[in-house]
Amino acid sequence: MTEQALDAFRARCVARVQATLERLLPAPQIEPARLHEAMRYSVLTGGKRIRPLLCYAAGEALGVSPALLDRPAAAVELIHAYSLIHDDLPAMDDDALRRGRPTCHKAFDEATAILAGDALQTLAFETLAEATDLNATARIAMVAALAQASGSRGMAGGQALDLAAEGKHLDRVMLEHIHIHKTGALIRAAIRLALLANGPVDTDHAARLDRYAKCVGLAFQIQDDVLDVTAETTITGKTRGRDQDLAKSTYPSVVGLAEAKEMAHNLLTDALTAVSVFPARADPLRWVVESLIVRTAA
Amino acid sequence: MTEQALDAFRARCVARVQATLERLLPAPQIEPARLHEAMRYSVLTGGKRIRPLLCYAAGEALGVSPALLDRPAAAVELIHAYSLIHDDLPAMDDDALRRGRPTCHKAFDEATAILAGDALQTLAFETLAEATDLNATARIAMVAALAQASGSRGMAGGQALDLAAEGKHLDRVMLEHIHIHKTGALIRAAIRLALLANGPVDTDHAARLDRYAKCVGLAFQIQDDVLDVTAETTITGKTRGRDQDLAKSTYPSVVGLAEAKEMAHNLLTDALTAVSVFPARADPLRWVVESLIVRTAA
Repeated sequence: MTEQALDAFRARCVARVQATLERLLPAPQIEPARLHEAMRYSVLTGGKRIRPLLCYAAGEALGVSPALLDRPAAAVELIHAYSLIHDDLPAMDDDALRRGRPTCHKAFDEATAILAGDALQTLAFETLAEATDLNATARIAMVAALAQASGSRGMAGGQALDLAAEGKHLDRVMLEHIHIHKTGALIRAAIRLALLANGPVDTDHAARLDRYAKCVGLAFQIQDDVLDVTAETTITGKTRGRDQDLAKSTYPSVVGLAEAKEMAHNLLTDALTAVSVFPARADPLRWVVESLIVRTAA
Repeated sequence: MTEQALDAFRARCVARVQATLERLLPAPQIEPARLHEAMRYSVLTGGKRIRPLLCYAAGEALGVSPALLDRPAAAVELIHAYSLIHDDLPAMDDDALRRGRPTCHKAFDEATAILAGDALQTLAFETLAEATDLNATARIAMVAALAQASGSRGMAGGQALDLAAEGKHLDRVMLEHIHIHKTGALIRAAIRLALLANGPVDTDHAARLDRYAKCVGLAFQIQDDVLDVTAETTITGKTRGRDQDLAKSTYPSVVGLAEAKEMAHNLLTDALTAVSVFPARADPLRWVVESLIVRTAA
Protein backbone atom coordinates (compact mmCIF):
# COMPACT_ATOMS: atom_id res chain seq x y z
CA MET A 1 0.00 0.00 0.00
CA THR A 2 1.16 3.51 -0.71
CA GLU A 3 1.40 6.10 2.03
CA GLN A 4 -1.65 7.86 0.56
CA ALA A 5 -3.65 4.63 0.60
CA LEU A 6 -2.74 4.10 4.24
CA ASP A 7 -3.66 7.64 5.19
CA ALA A 8 -6.98 7.12 3.41
CA PHE A 9 -7.49 3.83 5.27
CA ARG A 10 -6.91 5.54 8.61
CA ALA A 11 -9.23 8.41 7.74
CA ARG A 12 -11.92 5.95 6.62
CA CYS A 13 -11.68 3.98 9.87
CA VAL A 14 -11.82 7.07 12.05
CA ALA A 15 -14.84 8.34 10.08
CA ARG A 16 -16.58 4.95 10.36
CA VAL A 17 -16.15 4.68 14.12
CA GLN A 18 -17.14 8.31 14.59
CA ALA A 19 -20.34 7.81 12.59
CA THR A 20 -21.11 4.59 14.45
CA LEU A 21 -20.58 6.17 17.87
CA GLU A 22 -22.65 9.19 16.86
CA ARG A 23 -25.48 6.84 15.87
CA LEU A 24 -25.22 4.62 18.95
CA LEU A 25 -25.09 7.35 21.59
CA PRO A 26 -28.49 8.69 22.61
CA ALA A 27 -29.19 12.19 21.26
CA PRO A 28 -28.45 15.00 23.73
CA GLN A 29 -32.13 15.99 23.80
CA ILE A 30 -33.23 12.58 25.06
CA GLU A 31 -33.78 12.42 28.82
CA PRO A 32 -31.79 12.19 31.01
CA ALA A 33 -30.27 14.93 28.85
CA ARG A 34 -27.35 15.82 31.12
CA LEU A 35 -26.25 12.20 31.31
CA HIS A 36 -26.46 11.80 27.55
CA GLU A 37 -24.54 15.04 27.04
CA ALA A 38 -21.80 13.79 29.34
CA MET A 39 -21.62 10.47 27.49
CA ARG A 40 -21.37 12.23 24.13
CA TYR A 41 -18.87 14.78 25.46
CA SER A 42 -16.52 12.00 26.58
CA VAL A 43 -16.82 9.80 23.51
CA LEU A 44 -17.31 11.98 20.47
CA THR A 45 -14.63 14.58 20.96
CA GLY A 46 -11.21 13.45 19.93
CA GLY A 47 -9.13 10.52 20.98
CA LYS A 48 -6.77 8.71 18.69
CA ARG A 49 -9.23 5.83 18.09
CA ILE A 50 -6.25 3.49 18.20
CA ARG A 51 -8.37 0.52 19.33
CA PRO A 52 -10.97 0.83 16.54
CA LEU A 53 -8.13 1.39 14.08
CA LEU A 54 -6.47 -1.85 15.19
CA CYS A 55 -9.78 -3.69 14.93
CA TYR A 56 -10.34 -2.51 11.36
CA ALA A 57 -6.68 -3.11 10.44
CA ALA A 58 -6.87 -6.70 11.73
CA GLY A 59 -10.13 -7.10 9.80
CA GLU A 60 -8.42 -5.86 6.65
CA ALA A 61 -5.62 -8.41 7.17
CA LEU A 62 -8.23 -11.17 7.53
CA GLY A 63 -10.48 -9.99 4.69
CA VAL A 64 -13.39 -9.05 6.97
CA SER A 65 -15.75 -6.39 5.60
CA PRO A 66 -15.31 -3.17 7.61
CA ALA A 67 -19.10 -2.86 7.94
CA LEU A 68 -19.09 -6.00 10.11
CA LEU A 69 -16.57 -4.36 12.44
CA ASP A 70 -18.36 -1.04 12.95
CA ARG A 71 -20.11 -2.20 16.10
CA PRO A 72 -17.21 -4.24 17.54
CA ALA A 73 -14.81 -1.33 16.97
CA ALA A 74 -17.27 1.10 18.57
CA ALA A 75 -17.86 -1.25 21.51
CA VAL A 76 -14.14 -1.36 22.32
CA GLU A 77 -13.95 2.44 22.09
CA LEU A 78 -16.96 2.78 24.44
CA ILE A 79 -15.20 0.61 27.04
CA HIS A 80 -12.05 2.71 26.62
CA ALA A 81 -14.05 5.95 27.02
CA TYR A 82 -15.82 4.68 30.16
CA SER A 83 -12.49 3.70 31.70
CA LEU A 84 -10.98 7.13 31.04
CA ILE A 85 -13.93 8.90 32.72
CA HIS A 86 -13.64 6.75 35.83
CA ASP A 87 -9.81 6.87 35.89
CA ASP A 88 -9.94 10.68 35.89
CA LEU A 89 -12.27 10.89 38.92
CA PRO A 90 -10.98 12.59 42.10
CA ALA A 91 -10.91 9.27 43.97
CA MET A 92 -8.79 7.75 41.20
CA ASP A 93 -6.15 9.73 39.24
CA ASP A 94 -7.89 13.07 39.96
CA ASP A 95 -7.15 14.60 36.60
CA ALA A 96 -8.62 17.83 35.29
CA LEU A 97 -7.57 17.62 31.66
CA ARG A 98 -8.15 14.98 28.99
CA ARG A 99 -7.70 15.42 25.26
CA GLY A 100 -7.00 19.09 25.92
CA ARG A 101 -10.39 19.71 27.53
CA PRO A 102 -11.82 19.48 31.04
CA THR A 103 -12.37 15.88 32.16
CA CYS A 104 -15.97 14.69 32.39
CA HIS A 105 -16.37 15.32 36.13
CA LYS A 106 -14.95 18.84 35.67
CA ALA A 107 -17.18 19.66 32.70
CA PHE A 108 -20.23 18.13 34.41
CA ASP A 109 -20.03 16.83 37.97
CA GLU A 110 -18.77 13.73 39.74
CA ALA A 111 -22.10 11.92 39.98
CA THR A 112 -22.80 12.48 36.30
CA ALA A 113 -19.29 11.29 35.42
CA ILE A 114 -19.71 8.08 37.42
CA LEU A 115 -23.07 7.38 35.77
CA ALA A 116 -21.82 8.33 32.30
CA GLY A 117 -18.98 5.82 32.66
CA ASP A 118 -21.39 3.18 33.92
CA ALA A 119 -23.82 3.75 31.05
CA LEU A 120 -21.04 3.74 28.44
CA GLN A 121 -19.91 0.34 29.67
CA THR A 122 -23.49 -0.93 29.37
CA LEU A 123 -23.78 0.58 25.89
CA ALA A 124 -20.65 -1.29 24.78
CA PHE A 125 -22.26 -4.65 25.54
CA GLU A 126 -25.61 -3.56 24.13
CA THR A 127 -23.80 -2.53 20.94
CA LEU A 128 -22.34 -6.01 20.49
CA ALA A 129 -25.57 -7.76 21.45
CA GLU A 130 -27.49 -5.81 18.83
CA ALA A 131 -24.94 -6.25 16.00
CA THR A 132 -27.53 -8.09 13.92
CA ASP A 133 -25.28 -8.38 10.87
CA LEU A 134 -23.18 -10.87 12.86
CA ASN A 135 -24.58 -14.26 13.85
CA ALA A 136 -25.48 -14.95 17.47
CA THR A 137 -22.48 -17.23 18.00
CA ALA A 138 -20.01 -14.56 16.88
CA ARG A 139 -21.77 -11.89 18.93
CA ILE A 140 -21.81 -13.91 22.13
CA ALA A 141 -18.13 -14.81 21.69
CA MET A 142 -17.43 -11.09 21.31
CA VAL A 143 -19.37 -10.20 24.46
CA ALA A 144 -17.37 -12.82 26.36
CA ALA A 145 -14.03 -11.63 24.94
CA LEU A 146 -14.75 -7.96 25.63
CA ALA A 147 -15.96 -8.72 29.16
CA GLN A 148 -12.90 -10.83 29.97
CA ALA A 149 -10.65 -8.04 28.72
CA SER A 150 -12.46 -5.30 30.68
CA GLY A 151 -13.26 -6.86 34.05
CA SER A 152 -11.41 -7.50 37.28
CA ARG A 153 -8.97 -9.86 35.57
CA GLY A 154 -8.43 -7.40 32.73
CA MET A 155 -8.58 -3.63 32.44
CA ALA A 156 -10.39 -2.82 35.73
CA GLY A 157 -8.03 -5.17 37.56
CA GLY A 158 -5.05 -3.41 35.98
CA GLN A 159 -6.36 -0.08 37.17
CA ALA A 160 -6.76 -1.49 40.70
CA LEU A 161 -3.16 -2.74 40.63
CA ASP A 162 -2.00 0.62 39.30
CA LEU A 163 -3.70 2.51 42.13
CA ALA A 164 -2.36 0.08 44.74
CA ALA A 165 1.15 0.65 43.37
CA GLU A 166 1.08 4.43 43.82
CA GLY A 167 3.97 5.57 45.97
CA LYS A 168 5.64 2.15 45.79
CA HIS A 169 8.74 1.39 43.79
CA LEU A 170 7.88 -1.31 41.29
CA ASP A 171 10.22 -3.55 39.41
CA ARG A 172 9.98 -4.09 35.69
CA VAL A 173 8.04 -7.35 35.99
CA MET A 174 5.35 -5.84 38.19
CA LEU A 175 5.07 -2.77 35.97
CA GLU A 176 4.64 -4.95 32.92
CA HIS A 177 2.03 -7.03 34.77
CA ILE A 178 0.01 -3.87 35.50
CA HIS A 179 0.16 -2.57 31.98
CA ILE A 180 -0.64 -5.89 30.32
CA HIS A 181 -3.92 -5.67 32.20
CA LYS A 182 -4.60 -1.94 32.32
CA THR A 183 -4.10 -1.16 28.64
CA GLY A 184 -2.93 -4.37 26.98
CA ALA A 185 -6.06 -6.44 27.52
CA LEU A 186 -8.38 -4.05 25.69
CA ILE A 187 -5.98 -3.58 22.78
CA ARG A 188 -5.78 -7.37 22.43
CA ALA A 189 -9.58 -7.51 22.55
CA ALA A 190 -9.83 -4.99 19.68
CA ILE A 191 -7.93 -7.41 17.48
CA ARG A 192 -9.61 -10.49 18.91
CA LEU A 193 -13.05 -9.11 17.93
CA ALA A 194 -11.91 -8.85 14.30
CA LEU A 195 -10.84 -12.52 14.47
CA LEU A 196 -14.21 -13.53 15.95
CA ALA A 197 -16.09 -11.68 13.19
CA ASN A 198 -14.26 -13.78 10.64
CA GLY A 199 -15.46 -17.15 11.88
CA PRO A 200 -12.88 -19.98 11.87
CA VAL A 201 -9.36 -18.62 11.46
CA ASP A 202 -6.06 -20.38 10.82
CA THR A 203 -4.66 -20.87 14.35
CA ASP A 204 -1.17 -19.76 13.33
CA HIS A 205 -2.59 -16.51 12.00
CA ALA A 206 -4.68 -16.04 15.15
CA ALA A 207 -1.61 -16.58 17.34
CA ARG A 208 0.41 -14.14 15.23
CA LEU A 209 -2.26 -11.46 15.48
CA ASP A 210 -2.45 -11.97 19.24
CA ARG A 211 1.33 -11.68 19.53
CA TYR A 212 1.16 -8.50 17.46
CA ALA A 213 -1.58 -7.14 19.75
CA LYS A 214 0.38 -7.90 22.93
CA CYS A 215 3.52 -6.17 21.62
CA VAL A 216 1.65 -3.14 20.34
CA GLY A 217 -0.35 -2.85 23.58
CA LEU A 218 2.73 -2.81 25.77
CA ALA A 219 4.72 -0.54 23.43
CA PHE A 220 1.82 1.88 23.39
CA GLN A 221 1.76 2.09 27.20
CA ILE A 222 5.53 2.53 27.45
CA GLN A 223 5.23 5.37 24.95
CA ASP A 224 2.49 6.97 27.01
CA ASP A 225 4.79 6.88 30.02
CA VAL A 226 7.61 8.37 27.96
CA LEU A 227 5.38 11.11 26.55
CA ASP A 228 4.11 11.96 30.04
CA VAL A 229 7.68 12.97 30.85
CA THR A 230 8.83 14.46 27.57
CA ALA A 231 5.86 15.96 25.73
CA GLU A 232 4.09 19.24 26.28
CA THR A 233 0.50 19.26 27.59
CA THR A 234 -0.54 20.82 24.29
CA ILE A 235 0.61 17.67 22.48
CA THR A 236 -0.76 14.96 24.77
CA GLY A 237 -3.87 16.88 25.88
CA LYS A 238 -3.13 15.64 29.40
CA THR A 239 -1.48 17.35 32.33
CA ARG A 240 2.29 17.00 31.89
CA GLY A 241 4.19 15.07 34.55
CA ARG A 242 0.96 13.80 36.06
CA ASP A 243 2.43 10.32 36.68
CA GLN A 244 5.26 11.85 38.67
CA ASP A 245 2.83 13.94 40.73
CA LEU A 246 0.95 10.75 41.60
CA ALA A 247 4.23 9.04 42.54
CA LYS A 248 3.52 6.40 39.93
CA SER A 249 6.17 3.99 38.79
CA THR A 250 6.53 4.35 35.05
CA TYR A 251 8.87 2.82 32.51
CA PRO A 252 11.11 5.91 32.48
CA SER A 253 11.26 5.93 36.30
CA VAL A 254 11.95 2.20 36.57
CA VAL A 255 14.29 1.50 33.64
CA GLY A 256 15.30 5.02 32.61
CA LEU A 257 14.16 7.10 29.65
CA ALA A 258 16.61 5.72 27.08
CA GLU A 259 15.88 2.10 27.90
CA ALA A 260 12.12 2.72 27.93
CA LYS A 261 12.37 4.12 24.42
CA GLU A 262 14.43 1.14 23.34
CA MET A 263 11.95 -1.32 24.89
CA ALA A 264 9.09 0.28 22.98
CA HIS A 265 11.11 0.12 19.79
CA ASN A 266 11.95 -3.56 20.28
CA LEU A 267 8.33 -4.43 20.99
CA LEU A 268 7.24 -2.67 17.84
CA THR A 269 9.85 -4.59 15.86
CA ASP A 270 8.49 -7.82 17.37
CA ALA A 271 4.98 -6.78 16.36
CA LEU A 272 6.14 -6.31 12.76
CA THR A 273 7.82 -9.71 12.80
CA ALA A 274 4.65 -11.36 14.09
CA VAL A 275 2.66 -10.20 11.07
CA SER A 276 5.47 -10.50 8.53
CA VAL A 277 3.91 -13.61 6.95
CA PHE A 278 0.69 -11.77 6.15
CA PRO A 279 0.14 -10.47 2.59
CA ALA A 280 -0.10 -6.85 1.51
CA ARG A 281 -3.59 -6.44 2.95
CA ALA A 282 -1.97 -6.51 6.41
CA ASP A 283 -0.19 -3.25 5.54
CA PRO A 284 -2.51 -1.22 7.80
CA LEU A 285 -1.36 -3.34 10.76
CA ARG A 286 2.25 -2.59 9.80
CA TRP A 287 1.44 1.05 9.28
CA VAL A 288 0.02 1.39 12.83
CA VAL A 289 3.32 0.09 14.15
CA GLU A 290 5.34 2.40 11.95
CA SER A 291 3.36 5.42 13.05
CA LEU A 292 4.00 4.41 16.67
CA ILE A 293 7.74 4.14 15.95
CA VAL A 294 7.66 7.72 14.67
CA ARG A 295 5.79 8.75 17.84
CA THR A 296 8.62 7.44 20.09
CA ALA A 297 11.37 8.96 18.02
CA ALA A 298 9.72 12.40 18.09
CA MET B 1 -48.62 -24.83 46.87
CA THR B 2 -48.56 -25.00 50.63
CA GLU B 3 -46.84 -22.35 52.69
CA GLN B 4 -44.07 -24.82 53.51
CA ALA B 5 -43.55 -25.58 49.83
CA LEU B 6 -43.28 -21.87 49.08
CA ASP B 7 -40.83 -21.28 51.91
CA ALA B 8 -38.79 -24.17 50.59
CA PHE B 9 -38.94 -22.69 47.07
CA ARG B 10 -37.64 -19.38 48.33
CA ALA B 11 -34.87 -21.00 50.34
CA ARG B 12 -33.86 -23.08 47.31
CA CYS B 13 -33.69 -20.00 45.06
CA VAL B 14 -31.65 -18.00 47.55
CA ALA B 15 -29.27 -20.93 47.99
CA ARG B 16 -28.94 -21.38 44.22
CA VAL B 17 -28.12 -17.73 43.53
CA GLN B 18 -25.74 -17.61 46.48
CA ALA B 19 -23.87 -20.68 45.23
CA THR B 20 -23.77 -19.29 41.69
CA LEU B 21 -22.46 -15.90 42.81
CA GLU B 22 -19.90 -17.58 45.06
CA ARG B 23 -18.68 -19.58 42.07
CA LEU B 24 -18.67 -16.66 39.62
CA LEU B 25 -16.87 -14.13 41.79
CA PRO B 26 -13.08 -14.44 41.69
CA ALA B 27 -11.62 -15.90 44.89
CA PRO B 28 -10.35 -13.29 47.38
CA GLN B 29 -6.79 -14.60 47.03
CA ILE B 30 -6.69 -13.90 43.30
CA GLU B 31 -4.97 -10.61 42.37
CA PRO B 32 -6.04 -7.85 42.52
CA ALA B 33 -7.06 -9.24 45.91
CA ARG B 34 -8.46 -6.05 47.41
CA LEU B 35 -10.70 -5.49 44.38
CA HIS B 36 -11.96 -9.06 44.52
CA GLU B 37 -12.57 -8.78 48.27
CA ALA B 38 -14.62 -5.62 47.69
CA MET B 39 -16.65 -7.33 44.96
CA ARG B 40 -17.35 -10.32 47.20
CA TYR B 41 -18.12 -8.12 50.22
CA SER B 42 -20.77 -6.24 48.27
CA VAL B 43 -22.40 -9.21 46.59
CA LEU B 44 -22.21 -12.19 48.92
CA THR B 45 -23.37 -10.65 52.18
CA GLY B 46 -27.10 -10.37 52.44
CA GLY B 47 -29.64 -8.66 50.30
CA LYS B 48 -33.14 -9.95 49.78
CA ARG B 49 -32.29 -11.43 46.37
CA ILE B 50 -35.69 -10.25 45.19
CA ARG B 51 -34.61 -10.05 41.55
CA PRO B 52 -33.21 -13.60 41.37
CA LEU B 53 -36.29 -14.82 43.22
CA LEU B 54 -38.56 -13.21 40.62
CA CYS B 55 -36.47 -14.72 37.83
CA TYR B 56 -36.76 -18.22 39.27
CA ALA B 57 -40.47 -17.71 40.11
CA ALA B 58 -41.22 -16.64 36.52
CA GLY B 59 -39.21 -19.64 35.33
CA GLU B 60 -41.30 -21.92 37.55
CA ALA B 61 -44.49 -20.42 36.08
CA LEU B 62 -43.16 -21.11 32.56
CA GLY B 63 -41.74 -24.55 33.30
CA VAL B 64 -38.09 -23.52 32.85
CA SER B 65 -35.53 -25.63 34.70
CA PRO B 66 -34.01 -23.56 37.53
CA ALA B 67 -30.52 -24.67 36.47
CA LEU B 68 -30.97 -22.71 33.24
CA LEU B 69 -31.72 -19.59 35.26
CA ASP B 70 -28.77 -19.74 37.64
CA ARG B 71 -26.60 -17.48 35.48
CA PRO B 72 -29.37 -15.09 34.36
CA ALA B 73 -30.55 -14.67 37.98
CA ALA B 74 -26.98 -14.09 39.15
CA ALA B 75 -26.33 -11.61 36.31
CA VAL B 76 -29.29 -9.46 37.36
CA GLU B 77 -28.12 -9.55 40.98
CA LEU B 78 -24.61 -8.51 39.90
CA ILE B 79 -26.03 -5.47 38.09
CA HIS B 80 -28.09 -4.64 41.18
CA ALA B 81 -25.03 -4.98 43.43
CA TYR B 82 -22.90 -2.76 41.19
CA SER B 83 -25.61 -0.08 41.17
CA LEU B 84 -25.84 -0.08 44.98
CA ILE B 85 -22.07 0.38 45.35
CA HIS B 86 -22.05 3.35 42.98
CA ASP B 87 -25.29 4.85 44.39
CA ASP B 88 -23.75 4.84 47.87
CA LEU B 89 -20.62 6.79 46.80
CA PRO B 90 -19.99 10.22 48.35
CA ALA B 91 -20.66 11.95 45.00
CA MET B 92 -24.01 10.16 44.75
CA ASP B 93 -26.20 9.35 47.79
CA ASP B 94 -23.21 9.42 50.17
CA ASP B 95 -24.45 6.61 52.36
CA ALA B 96 -22.42 4.91 55.06
CA LEU B 97 -24.65 1.93 55.76
CA ARG B 98 -26.03 -0.80 53.52
CA ARG B 99 -27.54 -4.08 54.64
CA GLY B 100 -26.55 -3.16 58.18
CA ARG B 101 -22.85 -2.93 57.35
CA PRO B 102 -20.49 -0.22 56.13
CA THR B 103 -20.98 0.56 52.44
CA CYS B 104 -18.26 -0.59 50.05
CA HIS B 105 -16.39 2.74 49.94
CA LYS B 106 -16.44 2.88 53.76
CA ALA B 107 -15.25 -0.71 54.21
CA PHE B 108 -12.60 -0.28 51.49
CA ASP B 109 -12.04 3.09 49.80
CA GLU B 110 -13.69 5.14 47.09
CA ALA B 111 -11.41 4.10 44.24
CA THR B 112 -11.86 0.43 45.08
CA ALA B 113 -15.63 0.91 45.31
CA ILE B 114 -15.78 2.56 41.89
CA LEU B 115 -13.72 -0.24 40.34
CA ALA B 116 -15.63 -2.98 42.18
CA GLY B 117 -18.90 -1.61 40.77
CA ASP B 118 -17.38 -1.38 37.31
CA ALA B 119 -16.05 -4.94 37.44
CA LEU B 120 -19.35 -6.32 38.77
CA GLN B 121 -21.18 -4.82 35.83
CA THR B 122 -18.68 -6.44 33.47
CA LEU B 123 -19.05 -9.76 35.30
CA ALA B 124 -22.83 -9.63 34.81
CA PHE B 125 -22.45 -9.58 31.03
CA GLU B 126 -19.63 -12.13 31.09
CA THR B 127 -21.90 -14.39 33.16
CA LEU B 128 -24.62 -14.31 30.51
CA ALA B 129 -22.17 -14.65 27.63
CA GLU B 130 -20.68 -17.78 29.20
CA ALA B 131 -24.01 -19.44 30.07
CA THR B 132 -23.18 -22.38 27.81
CA ASP B 133 -26.28 -24.36 28.79
CA LEU B 134 -28.34 -21.77 26.87
CA ASN B 135 -28.07 -21.43 23.11
CA ALA B 136 -26.30 -18.42 21.60
CA THR B 137 -29.57 -16.82 20.44
CA ALA B 138 -31.08 -16.92 23.94
CA ARG B 139 -27.86 -15.64 25.49
CA ILE B 140 -27.48 -12.72 23.11
CA ALA B 141 -31.14 -11.74 23.62
CA MET B 142 -30.48 -11.79 27.36
CA VAL B 143 -27.39 -9.59 27.04
CA ALA B 144 -29.44 -7.10 25.00
CA ALA B 145 -32.35 -7.16 27.47
CA LEU B 146 -30.12 -6.73 30.52
CA ALA B 147 -28.16 -3.93 28.86
CA GLN B 148 -31.31 -2.05 27.82
CA ALA B 149 -32.62 -2.33 31.37
CA SER B 150 -29.37 -1.15 32.99
CA GLY B 151 -28.12 1.64 30.76
CA SER B 152 -28.83 5.32 30.30
CA ARG B 153 -32.40 4.62 29.21
CA GLY B 154 -32.93 2.23 32.12
CA MET B 155 -31.47 1.96 35.60
CA ALA B 156 -28.49 4.34 35.23
CA GLY B 157 -30.77 6.89 33.58
CA GLY B 158 -33.22 6.57 36.47
CA GLN B 159 -30.43 7.22 38.93
CA ALA B 160 -29.40 10.32 36.94
CA LEU B 161 -32.99 11.61 37.03
CA ASP B 162 -33.19 10.85 40.74
CA LEU B 163 -30.03 12.86 41.46
CA ALA B 164 -31.20 15.74 39.28
CA ALA B 165 -34.47 15.82 41.22
CA GLU B 166 -32.83 16.27 44.64
CA GLY B 167 -34.17 19.36 46.35
CA LYS B 168 -36.95 19.76 43.79
CA HIS B 169 -40.59 19.06 44.46
CA LEU B 170 -41.73 16.38 42.03
CA ASP B 171 -45.24 15.48 41.06
CA ARG B 172 -46.49 11.94 41.04
CA VAL B 173 -45.96 11.43 37.30
CA MET B 174 -42.32 12.49 37.45
CA LEU B 175 -41.69 10.39 40.54
CA GLU B 176 -43.18 7.34 38.83
CA HIS B 177 -41.08 8.06 35.74
CA ILE B 178 -37.91 8.03 37.85
CA HIS B 179 -38.77 4.83 39.65
CA ILE B 180 -39.88 2.95 36.55
CA HIS B 181 -36.33 3.47 35.34
CA LYS B 182 -34.31 3.38 38.55
CA THR B 183 -35.73 0.16 40.02
CA GLY B 184 -38.50 -0.98 37.69
CA ALA B 185 -36.40 -1.68 34.62
CA LEU B 186 -34.12 -4.21 36.32
CA ILE B 187 -37.02 -6.01 38.02
CA ARG B 188 -38.72 -6.33 34.64
CA ALA B 189 -35.47 -7.63 33.18
CA ALA B 190 -35.28 -10.34 35.87
CA ILE B 191 -38.60 -11.72 34.61
CA ARG B 192 -37.79 -11.07 30.97
CA LEU B 193 -34.67 -13.24 31.22
CA ALA B 194 -36.80 -16.18 32.39
CA LEU B 195 -39.02 -15.67 29.34
CA LEU B 196 -36.00 -15.58 27.03
CA ALA B 197 -34.63 -18.80 28.51
CA ASN B 198 -37.89 -20.52 27.58
CA GLY B 199 -37.68 -19.87 23.83
CA PRO B 200 -40.97 -18.95 22.11
CA VAL B 201 -43.64 -18.01 24.64
CA ASP B 202 -47.37 -17.38 24.25
CA THR B 203 -47.54 -13.59 23.74
CA ASP B 204 -50.48 -13.21 26.12
CA HIS B 205 -48.47 -14.92 28.84
CA ALA B 206 -45.44 -12.79 28.08
CA ALA B 207 -47.53 -9.61 28.29
CA ARG B 208 -49.07 -10.75 31.58
CA LEU B 209 -45.69 -11.49 33.10
CA ASP B 210 -44.42 -8.10 32.00
CA ARG B 211 -47.47 -6.40 33.51
CA TYR B 212 -46.83 -8.34 36.72
CA ALA B 213 -43.19 -7.23 36.68
CA LYS B 214 -44.06 -3.56 36.17
CA CYS B 215 -46.56 -3.56 39.05
CA VAL B 216 -44.24 -5.41 41.42
CA GLY B 217 -41.33 -3.15 40.51
CA LEU B 218 -43.19 0.04 41.27
CA ALA B 219 -44.86 -1.34 44.41
CA PHE B 220 -41.47 -2.44 45.66
CA GLN B 221 -40.05 1.07 45.25
CA ILE B 222 -43.04 2.73 46.92
CA GLN B 223 -42.57 0.34 49.82
CA ASP B 224 -38.89 1.23 50.05
CA ASP B 225 -39.87 4.90 50.29
CA VAL B 226 -42.44 4.05 52.97
CA LEU B 227 -39.97 1.95 54.93
CA ASP B 228 -37.37 4.72 54.75
CA VAL B 229 -39.78 6.83 56.81
CA THR B 230 -41.33 4.24 59.09
CA ALA B 231 -38.86 1.45 59.74
CA GLU B 232 -35.89 1.33 62.05
CA THR B 233 -32.36 1.22 60.63
CA THR B 234 -32.01 -2.21 62.23
CA ILE B 235 -34.81 -3.50 59.98
CA THR B 236 -33.85 -1.95 56.64
CA GLY B 237 -30.09 -2.07 57.18
CA LYS B 238 -29.98 1.46 55.74
CA THR B 239 -29.74 4.82 57.47
CA ARG B 240 -33.26 5.81 58.50
CA GLY B 241 -34.72 8.97 56.96
CA ARG B 242 -31.89 9.14 54.44
CA ASP B 243 -34.24 10.22 51.62
CA GLN B 244 -35.41 13.15 53.72
CA ASP B 245 -31.82 14.16 54.49
CA LEU B 246 -31.12 14.23 50.78
CA ALA B 247 -34.28 16.29 50.17
CA LYS B 248 -35.54 13.57 47.87
CA SER B 249 -39.11 13.49 46.73
CA THR B 250 -40.59 10.15 47.78
CA TYR B 251 -44.06 8.67 47.56
CA PRO B 252 -44.84 9.53 51.19
CA SER B 253 -43.63 13.12 50.69
CA VAL B 254 -45.54 13.58 47.42
CA VAL B 255 -48.82 11.75 48.04
CA GLY B 256 -48.74 11.23 51.80
CA LEU B 257 -47.98 8.07 53.78
CA ALA B 258 -51.48 6.60 53.74
CA GLU B 259 -51.95 7.02 50.02
CA ALA B 260 -48.46 5.66 49.30
CA LYS B 261 -49.36 2.51 51.22
CA GLU B 262 -52.62 2.24 49.31
CA MET B 263 -50.89 2.71 45.96
CA ALA B 264 -48.48 -0.10 46.75
CA HIS B 265 -51.36 -2.32 47.80
CA ASN B 266 -53.30 -1.60 44.57
CA LEU B 267 -50.27 -2.31 42.42
CA LEU B 268 -49.74 -5.63 44.15
CA THR B 269 -53.41 -6.51 43.57
CA ASP B 270 -52.93 -5.66 39.88
CA ALA B 271 -49.87 -7.90 39.81
CA LEU B 272 -51.93 -10.80 41.20
CA THR B 273 -54.63 -10.17 38.60
CA ALA B 274 -52.07 -10.18 35.79
CA VAL B 275 -50.95 -13.72 36.65
CA SER B 276 -54.37 -15.04 37.73
CA VAL B 277 -54.74 -17.12 34.55
CA PHE B 278 -51.55 -19.04 35.27
CA PRO B 279 -51.79 -22.51 36.82
CA ALA B 280 -50.60 -23.55 40.26
CA ARG B 281 -46.96 -23.54 39.22
CA ALA B 282 -47.18 -19.72 39.19
CA ASP B 283 -47.77 -19.82 42.95
CA PRO B 284 -44.25 -18.57 43.69
CA LEU B 285 -45.02 -15.41 41.67
CA ARG B 286 -48.18 -14.95 43.76
CA TRP B 287 -46.29 -15.70 46.94
CA VAL B 288 -43.71 -12.95 46.22
CA VAL B 289 -46.60 -10.48 45.94
CA GLU B 290 -48.24 -11.72 49.11
CA SER B 291 -45.02 -11.41 51.06
CA LEU B 292 -44.70 -7.83 49.79
CA ILE B 293 -48.27 -7.10 50.91
CA VAL B 294 -47.30 -8.26 54.40
CA ARG B 295 -44.23 -5.99 54.21
CA THR B 296 -46.37 -2.85 53.63
CA ALA B 297 -48.90 -3.74 56.28
CA ALA B 298 -46.18 -4.17 58.90
